Amino acid sequence: MASSSYGPRLVVPIDVKKKPWEQKLPLHNRWHPDIPPVAEATVGEVFRVEMVDFSGGGITKEYTAEDIKHANPSIVHYLSGPIRISDKKGVPAQPGDLLVVEICNLGPLPGDEWGFTATFDRENGGGFLTDHFPCATKAIWYFEGIYAYSPQIPGVRFPGLTHPGIVGTAPSMELLNIWNERERELEENGIKSLKLCEVVHQRPLASLPSTKGCVLGGIKEGTPEWEKIAVEAARTIPGRENGGNCDIKNLSRGSKIYLPVFIEGANLSTGDMHFSQGDGEIAFCGAIEMSGFLELKCEIIRGGMKEYLTPMGPTPLHVNPIFEIGPVEPRFSEWLVFEGISVDESGKQHYLDATVAYKRAVLNAIDYLSKFGYSKEQSYLLLSCCPCEGRISGIVDAPNAVATLAIPTAIFDQDIRPRTNKVPVGPRIVRTPDVLKCTYDGNLPTTRNPSAAT
Amino acid sequence: MASSSYGPRLVVPIDVKKKPWEQKLPLHNRWHPDIPPVAEATVGEVFRVEMVDFSGGGITKEYTAEDIKHANPSIVHYLSGPIRISDKKGVPAQPGDLLVVEICNLGPLPGDEWGFTATFDRENGGGFLTDHFPCATKAIWYFEGIYAYSPQIPGVRFPGLTHPGIVGTAPSMELLNIWNERERELEENGIKSLKLCEVVHQRPLASLPSTKGCVLGGIKEGTPEWEKIAVEAARTIPGRENGGNCDIKNLSRGSKIYLPVFIEGANLSTGDMHFSQGDGEIAFCGAIEMSGFLELKCEIIRGGMKEYLTPMGPTPLHVNPIFEIGPVEPRFSEWLVFEGISVDESGKQHYLDATVAYKRAVLNAIDYLSKFGYSKEQSYLLLSCCPCEGRISGIVDAPNAVATLAIPTAIFDQDIRPRTNKVPVGPRIVRTPDVLKCTYDGNLPTTRNPSAAT
Amino acid sequence: MASSSYGPRLVVPIDVKKKPWEQKLPLHNRWHPDIPPVAEATVGEVFRVEMVDFSGGGITKEYTAEDIKHANPSIVHYLSGPIRISDKKGVPAQPGDLLVVEICNLGPLPGDEWGFTATFDRENGGGFLTDHFPCATKAIWYFEGIYAYSPQIPGVRFPGLTHPGIVGTAPSMELLNIWNERERELEENGIKSLKLCEVVHQRPLASLPSTKGCVLGGIKEGTPEWEKIAVEAARTIPGRENGGNCDIKNLSRGSKIYLPVFIEGANLSTGDMHFSQGDGEIAFCGAIEMSGFLELKCEIIRGGMKEYLTPMGPTPLHVNPIFEIGPVEPRFSEWLVFEGISVDESGKQHYLDATVAYKRAVLNAIDYLSKFGYSKEQSYLLLSCCPCEGRISGIVDAPNAVATLAIPTAIFDQDIRPRTNKVPVGPRIVRTPDVLKCTYDGNLPTTRNPSAAT
Amino acid sequence: MASSSYGPRLVVPIDVKKKPWEQKLPLHNRWHPDIPPVAEATVGEVFRVEMVDFSGGGITKEYTAEDIKHANPSIVHYLSGPIRISDKKGVPAQPGDLLVVEICNLGPLPGDEWGFTATFDRENGGGFLTDHFPCATKAIWYFEGIYAYSPQIPGVRFPGLTHPGIVGTAPSMELLNIWNERERELEENGIKSLKLCEVVHQRPLASLPSTKGCVLGGIKEGTPEWEKIAVEAARTIPGRENGGNCDIKNLSRGSKIYLPVFIEGANLSTGDMHFSQGDGEIAFCGAIEMSGFLELKCEIIRGGMKEYLTPMGPTPLHVNPIFEIGPVEPRFSEWLVFEGISVDESGKQHYLDATVAYKRAVLNAIDYLSKFGYSKEQSYLLLSCCPCEGRISGIVDAPNAVATLAIPTAIFDQDIRPRTNKVPVGPRIVRTPDVLKCTYDGNLPTTRNPSAAT
Repeated sequence: MASSSYGPRLVVPIDVKKKPWEQKLPLHNRWHPDIPPVAEATVGEVFRVEMVDFSGGGITKEYTAEDIKHANPSIVHYLSGPIRISDKKGVPAQPGDLLVVEICNLGPLPGDEWGFTATFDRENGGGFLTDHFPCATKAIWYFEGIYAYSPQIPGVRFPGLTHPGIVGTAPSMELLNIWNERERELEENGIKSLKLCEVVHQRPLASLPSTKGCVLGGIKEGTPEWEKIAVEAARTIPGRENGGNCDIKNLSRGSKIYLPVFIEGANLSTGDMHFSQGDGEIAFCGAIEMSGFLELKCEIIRGGMKEYLTPMGPTPLHVNPIFEIGPVEPRFSEWLVFEGISVDESGKQHYLDATVAYKRAVLNAIDYLSKFGYSKEQSYLLLSCCPCEGRISGIVDAPNAVATLAIPTAIFDQDIRPRTNKVPVGPRIVRTPDVLKCTYDGNLPTTRNPSAAT
Repeated sequence: MASSSYGPRLVVPIDVKKKPWEQKLPLHNRWHPDIPPVAEATVGEVFRVEMVDFSGGGITKEYTAEDIKHANPSIVHYLSGPIRISDKKGVPAQPGDLLVVEICNLGPLPGDEWGFTATFDRENGGGFLTDHFPCATKAIWYFEGIYAYSPQIPGVRFPGLTHPGIVGTAPSMELLNIWNERERELEENGIKSLKLCEVVHQRPLASLPSTKGCVLGGIKEGTPEWEKIAVEAARTIPGRENGGNCDIKNLSRGSKIYLPVFIEGANLSTGDMHFSQGDGEIAFCGAIEMSGFLELKCEIIRGGMKEYLTPMGPTPLHVNPIFEIGPVEPRFSEWLVFEGISVDESGKQHYLDATVAYKRAVLNAIDYLSKFGYSKEQSYLLLSCCPCEGRISGIVDAPNAVATLAIPTAIFDQDIRPRTNKVPVGPRIVRTPDVLKCTYDGNLPTTRNPSAAT
Repeated sequence: MASSSYGPRLVVPIDVKKKPWEQKLPLHNRWHPDIPPVAEATVGEVFRVEMVDFSGGGITKEYTAEDIKHANPSIVHYLSGPIRISDKKGVPAQPGDLLVVEICNLGPLPGDEWGFTATFDRENGGGFLTDHFPCATKAIWYFEGIYAYSPQIPGVRFPGLTHPGIVGTAPSMELLNIWNERERELEENGIKSLKLCEVVHQRPLASLPSTKGCVLGGIKEGTPEWEKIAVEAARTIPGRENGGNCDIKNLSRGSKIYLPVFIEGANLSTGDMHFSQGDGEIAFCGAIEMSGFLELKCEIIRGGMKEYLTPMGPTPLHVNPIFEIGPVEPRFSEWLVFEGISVDESGKQHYLDATVAYKRAVLNAIDYLSKFGYSKEQSYLLLSCCPCEGRISGIVDAPNAVATLAIPTAIFDQDIRPRTNKVPVGPRIVRTPDVLKCTYDGNLPTTRNPSAAT
Repeated sequence: MASSSYGPRLVVPIDVKKKPWEQKLPLHNRWHPDIPPVAEATVGEVFRVEMVDFSGGGITKEYTAEDIKHANPSIVHYLSGPIRISDKKGVPAQPGDLLVVEICNLGPLPGDEWGFTATFDRENGGGFLTDHFPCATKAIWYFEGIYAYSPQIPGVRFPGLTHPGIVGTAPSMELLNIWNERERELEENGIKSLKLCEVVHQRPLASLPSTKGCVLGGIKEGTPEWEKIAVEAARTIPGRENGGNCDIKNLSRGSKIYLPVFIEGANLSTGDMHFSQGDGEIAFCGAIEMSGFLELKCEIIRGGMKEYLTPMGPTPLHVNPIFEIGPVEPRFSEWLVFEGISVDESGKQHYLDATVAYKRAVLNAIDYLSKFGYSKEQSYLLLSCCPCEGRISGIVDAPNAVATLAIPTAIFDQDIRPRTNKVPVGPRIVRTPDVLKCTYDGNLPTTRNPSAAT
């Protein structure tokens, strides 16, 4: 007899015309073991999870950056789930297991084939280069099948290496406490101890639990349970031991994620879909952010945490997920590579600091592209969302870390390589229009490139 | 008429049976504008440069790690050159030009098809993980054409992504002074200001100019000129504005390097050949170090620094080279990826620190591989020299930077992926022998993994 | 203002629960200039075309091969269209133009994520190896996102390089007459003149126009117009000057097809969707046949036929389309390659015959895989639909053409490479079940491998 | 203790300044079991074999095609070897074994970094398109490391996918007799039975054994033994059961060849080195022909013929080798694809004839490139030697076989894709100079494209 089961089973539906709080199944935007599952899935079956974009529609397709300037950071990221995972006998995943999540397919939601790349105002979270670019900016991208293009960044078109920014299991209370404690310690004492990374510390040090904007799925706001959980549930911004907001751009079709299980059922949540992202996601809302769907298939490796993960830290919970990259990625053969070393914009030497080195590599790339007609804001958003690769090339040659940023040249409609003869092969003209942009009304100092004036 | 010119012209020959100071053309191991060129090359011609390994034969193919334990760090890296580059009319490269260096071919020197990967004793420079692995260790690799294998790390064999660790132009005095000043500042004050990166600061902060071990090419040791230059010539350890020790592993056949020119003739030097290296070169002598040759072809882009590079820093000299990656690289389709976040081994939270995150990713990978029969020292050396990729995946999701280390699974003779059924597909047995290893006789504290005892 | 247009416009909808003749827009299965367009599309817009499988549901997902044994060959292939293409000013494509069709996206129809691979009974069309395998056989494939697996061919799973088997423009009457004339000439006289290719001529020589099974879109069966067109409309089986059934497996996401335009509006038709296919599609229904959708974007190069295509033959219509392969394909790094030379199964020497050589390569591969537990029928279907590459390696070394068939080894769950030590790394066991299979009730002789009995 | 063995052992040296008959070890240009080994190699060791170009220097680097016009076809191909292969215990390979030959490295001989691509005069063997291009032509290529360029075909430069055209084991007498018999049968009777492939049969049907030009290694010309062997030794032109002249362009670094062993010691011979070749090697001397070296490593799979190869034909000797493709190939991401169907230049329909279809695809590509400034002879030679891919795309859609030729666009210095706007991005100008060319003095008819006159 023929099998009648094929096609993914839809376990979390989304109606993109509705608000996050109007969806059929409730969403959540915090990590906590007590957020109840909204759906279940069984090992071996292919199931479909739909997701709103990280902002739940807060950032719109209007041609203005006002929405990003005044965005409410307390509501990120709206996630779908939790989904309780069990084996074929109905036994749920157990703490200590490894949950294998295969991404069978993914994409934008039909009828919603667009996305945005943006950077927050500096007062509102900024991005990796917020000391250089304090203004809120935004670009809208439209999708033509596998390709994306933006009216605000003309002259580029590229295939998406689409992936979820967030895939994670629910933490146990023990793990949650570890998170809150270490991040609070940083928030409270970091500013004093921060010396070396001062170049990047203009941004918030951490985002501690807050009841403001807190959405806890099936747990109703205002109930005693909600009040209790809301003050301890972790924000979803950083990636952590449970996976979460890893923003690993290669987690596309055919990839596998090996997630540690901390509570019964694993309680898998996903969200923050990206049509495309560059390594680092430098602009912060820096991928091509979109609503979307995942088609997933799970396995459970019983006792897999002990078998395959080694904790590194004070407890057995100090582990990280493992990944396998899938076989279907856009294929580029030519890359232009920019390098940065751990010397900052003032000329100061830092010690093997890969963050500073990568910042330099990105700044070098932005300046370079501006010679081909792009505004620096266009390049900043572009390098944040196109499939560029950020590498730690050298991490031992004291005092300089060397980081590199490799850009696939095929995404441009002109030849952006340096040429002996200056006759431009492509247009190489000033591009208009520019990204959507707001004024910066704050008074934090901007990092000036001392050479820029010359 | 047929052209009679083909095949590269040998401009710097090396006799691998001789000591560095016995070579036909003198070598050098410092950067300084006054080190005289030993050869010349013209734009458009293919020329061949041969090089000793970085240690000039100091590290031998003997099966012992004593040589690496007692290595003299003051002599690194022996470079071939400088080579003065002129155009076809005989006009040399000028400050402000870009020197385009295409790597037409490269490889080990015939008759010397072996290399080594090693990590220094902690007292002698250590490596990225020296607080975990303070002992000097070494592995010998033999080459079978494009492949390398090591008796000390059985069960792996991989094709080399061969490249020069060092390609650079000579600095001007102005640039040299900038280097010396900023590195001295770090050396003198860094220890006080280092708070955030304390996890990695057990290693020397910088290596300032020293007459000890200094080799200046055509300038004879002991002469007044030598005495003057030796105290100001920069060490070759870090990559800097002139390129230098960038250790970018993808600079292989067919790549192009766009180097800024700081003095007349460009004075190109090369060395530190690597049969293969992983991103980061974590063990420090961490590539498969070897002697070798480069076949190069140069172009000059007149005024190219202004045309294509934007300085970022106090002077117009604060620039970095640009690269193009070549079309011939080993092709892997399956990768296992390890992740690290910027939480250190003690559980402490760091702020968007990609260096800490990458350290964590590497430690996770080492622990993982030890489950398949490798000693941690074997994995440390392997991840340092095999073609693994180190990525800055997320650099904005405060407080956690996310770094990833991707390992091509095809280099192993067993399937190293996590499996639902524990029946091992490959051997998965304890590997003997181990790396060559010395005792650590110092008394610096070792970083313990608090979970290791459990 | 924000653009409100994104997402593809659906121009040809399909309801997979309905029969071909019940669809909202009529389908067609012949090529003729007078089949009227069912839809229109404009240059630059992304539009969506849905399609039934080539058999219009005639071949079912039931676990039997009876349907393929008794399939009606006169109805293939049900196509969607024609679609009339115009530029933004409303001027339709003109004869002599080139129609550029970009495949922005494609896939199976939601809710219909399965396909089949089959080979006809020898009396009913057979396949490339019908003289060896005269029986009708079938395998059902289920899709898990990008992956396909079959209960009838266990131990393999692979990502699809999904593509339309048929993309074509309508022929003019002049071109149609050329087709009918040359194919009739072959049908009538070929059997006499066939000497060299006798090895493969057991199959029908050509399929001439026939009213039986003829479906002509908007032209109603039985009308005088239908009667006139049905006797002259070309069958869709072979690829021809208008593109058509080219079965080029790399025409996947991101590809472009440059089609000659023969009549006003171009009249683009598509169909015969393949989840995956190997070069050659040897089993004839040999891809993973499915229903599906295309998201297309067109351009018109005015006068492009003269500009870019050179006719080769008696008329200016003797041209062929050009293609560009897209950047997103499954990535395999290891291939096992089988070779064939133009010596047939009886040992007879043929002259530079690539068809005979490829037949030999395929037979060699089938025999090889049978050593790893696959039945020959399983391998025949597998090599027909998996992403294997068929190459003409040598076509000049008389008398032997050399053809090769390269199989990506990663699609198997065992290591299928020859090994010095026979300890199998994978299972290497007889596979059950087998393909679905019918008896062959005809009496045509089977090609025996003289060595098979030994 | 350290191993002292590394680097390949040179077993067959070549002095490129000497004639083939002056080499230290004698060469051979026929296949016969009684040609004595000139060297030995052991399983597991890496050994180096050097080779003259196929013509032994007969085709020179002079800028004239006279040498190719008057080339002596009886002397091809000069091979190095035979090399007797034994296991580590000294037991030689036995009939029935599989000889695994890994290509560890290869390249041109130092000091001889040039090659040629040519096509013979039609009276002298011609090439795949000799009925279109009856003249002898030649292009000289110079190597810049991995890249080749030709003064006769300006505007292209590409990395070589370097490989040996010929790798083979010695046949047994039984196999040799099979070859001679079937090829004689074709030579004697083929012309009568050739109907379908008449389009390509203007070239010699086969090259039977001939004493003219015969070189038999250690067996001295004129001795009785020589006389006996010379009349029965097979020519090296076609690939056969022993491997031989397979011209599989992907057999580059890291590849493995599984060769059947027919006589004791295997008697491995190699030659006909190609810097680069396109699938099909259409011009006949159509690769970039050069002298070169191979670094090889062998294994013996005892009894491997029975274990892994299935004979297909009258005897157990009717087998073909198997190959594995290596992981290091030039990487291209963009391809322009030309298609051909089995309709010949006169418009006549052929039946599933992949040879005719490929001829059409090649002719289409040549005509296309001529629109970008290349002469047809330049394109003919270029498509013969650049890394283009020739595929059998469809072999079942009667009556048309579909063959495709994919050209990597990155090898050109202009954008060769069709464009909507005719403003050329690159030069698109007539190229001068042209290939080196002789007159055709014969009187065989040329195939005219009937459309060419229009």
